[in-house]
Amino acid sequence: MAQGFDVVGMGGAIVDVIAPVHDGFLLTHNIAKGVMTLIDEFRANVLYEAFDDTREIAGGSAANTMAGFASLGGNGSFIGKVKDDRLGESFIQSLRASGVDYTIAPAQSGPSTACCLIAVTDDGQRSMNTYLGAARELSPADIDEAAVAKADILYIEGYLWDAPDPKAAITKAIGIAKKSGRKAALTLSDPFCVGRWRDEFLSLLRNDLDIVFANEEEAKALFELENFDDVLQQFESWDGIAAITRSAKGCVVARKGEVHVIDAAPVSRVIDTTGAGDQFAAGFLYGVTHGKSLADCGRLGALCAAEVISHYGARPDVSLKALAQENGLI
Amino acid sequence: MAQGFDVVGMGGAIVDVIAPVHDGFLLTHNIAKGVMTLIDEFRANVLYEAFDDTREIAGGSAANTMAGFASLGGNGSFIGKVKDDRLGESFIQSLRASGVDYTIAPAQSGPSTACCLIAVTDDGQRSMNTYLGAARELSPADIDEAAVAKADILYIEGYLWDAPDPKAAITKAIGIAKKSGRKAALTLSDPFCVGRWRDEFLSLLRNDLDIVFANEEEAKALFELENFDDVLQQFESWDGIAAITRSAKGCVVARKGEVHVIDAAPVSRVIDTTGAGDQFAAGFLYGVTHGKSLADCGRLGALCAAEVISHYGARPDVSLKALAQENGLI
Repeated sequence: MAQGFDVVGMGGAIVDVIAPVHDGFLLTHNIAKGVMTLIDEFRANVLYEAFDDTREIAGGSAANTMAGFASLGGNGSFIGKVKDDRLGESFIQSLRASGVDYTIAPAQSGPSTACCLIAVTDDGQRSMNTYLGAARELSPADIDEAAVAKADILYIEGYLWDAPDPKAAITKAIGIAKKSGRKAALTLSDPFCVGRWRDEFLSLLRNDLDIVFANEEEAKALFELENFDDVLQQFESWDGIAAITRSAKGCVVARKGEVHVIDAAPVSRVIDTTGAGDQFAAGFLYGVTHGKSLADCGRLGALCAAEVISHYGARPDVSLKALAQENGLI
Repeated sequence: MAQGFDVVGMGGAIVDVIAPVHDGFLLTHNIAKGVMTLIDEFRANVLYEAFDDTREIAGGSAANTMAGFASLGGNGSFIGKVKDDRLGESFIQSLRASGVDYTIAPAQSGPSTACCLIAVTDDGQRSMNTYLGAARELSPADIDEAAVAKADILYIEGYLWDAPDPKAAITKAIGIAKKSGRKAALTLSDPFCVGRWRDEFLSLLRNDLDIVFANEEEAKALFELENFDDVLQQFESWDGIAAITRSAKGCVVARKGEVHVIDAAPVSRVIDTTGAGDQFAAGFLYGVTHGKSLADCGRLGALCAAEVISHYGARPDVSLKALAQENGLI
């Protein structure tokens, strides 16, 4: 690694376990529909046993973003913790196969590799039950100081803030990035995550971050505001870049004194919205690290999000690089 | 008039003649669906005779705006020309009944009062055939210098630019407004109108206007750009206030270094979109002339537009003042 990575992503190293269910399954197992809920190992085992017809895919929000970033041709690395077990090995193989660098040593003891048990109902909604397991074991010792110091952008998944060791690892990584004159980016991950860590995220925003990704609900939760434009005004007076996604309404990108309103890229049929935010971030980060205008960063994000919602799964089905070239964006 | 009007509106004094038709009627009479077409007196008579089951209502874009402005409690006057005939008398009575001041002397000779023959197809679309008649006779002599000089805002309908005498009247009125330190506002009226007068509208924008109203298609036509954000960037670098309406996507309001993204106000069912832009302008102008924030001007516009599209007709069915009060906007 002579030049350093464009982006080093930090997040949960999680294997998605996906199963089709009926609404009754959600009721029987007391699963909140359409959102992500954290569960413990016991509940993970119960749900895993109750699932039929499962598929297993390496996932996790920031890891999905890094896979998309690599699909665009970006040079990225991922920091996240697995255990030295079957799922852990599967995660590493899958991530490396997608073109993402990964060098974190698997844990030899402790909780097993994280999984996200995803119940997909007939209406296409995904109800996610995440057992963080080994992902919560990411610690400051896992941070490769040289890699973070040389990467243009450190990209952090907000979900990681839910555990003390990963939080310490993030704090260390941000410290390295800032000391090295690099950019730090955070995705707010989900409205509940924002609710849990609102004050700390606001402090990060004020003191450490250069780029923030949020969907509309997360951004409203961050500032405890109900009106989109009021949220936008908060970001317009902030020094960094805010990329706020609004589903079918597209996205709004703001940097002090500059606002872009970007339409959603056309999708013939929305199949599964999982990963839309992750792939939006992939496209946007590619733009930022490859000298694109702020508007084109938003368009790249919108294009990658449109690709991923046009099929099942949270990672791209096609080469995002070819797609972006066809659309004249790279 | 001790204090002067909040807004003096200039536009076509037109009586709407509305009839339900089937699509076949449009084909038979070679009417372009869903847009406004200018016609001559002969064709106006032919269509009028072919119409069945008509209703007649005073209309015209800027006159509709002034009626909405008065419904909000604003103090407004209208400048537009009718002939001293049955439709002209009807127009004046209707406008005054809506609370708008009107003192222009009707023409004693020349073309008859303008009418807009509106064919409403089964799908709710309105195809408008406008005979401008006496409306084209508005001339500089009709401009009351004192009234324009004392009004906070001179509001001009772009359609008027289609005829030489009204254009001269606008030029005179803008001169008075600017000399008196007042604001000049223009609504672009429709994409075809923008296409006809693009260079002159751009010159007005650069040299004379303080506020411009446009829907997305009109704004794209003005700058010959296909992408909404590219249009927005043009307005972000302009000194005045741009209020761009985007139908269900709401509106974007830009003033140098300040951008507001305002959602459309909720409508339980869209019945007829005629007048949406006119009533948006009414709400926005009320906000500007009553010390509201730029975001609240946009919200007032969105609220008034939502009211008018929830029923047939281009003027409000309820007191906009009461509606705005219920919504906490005034």
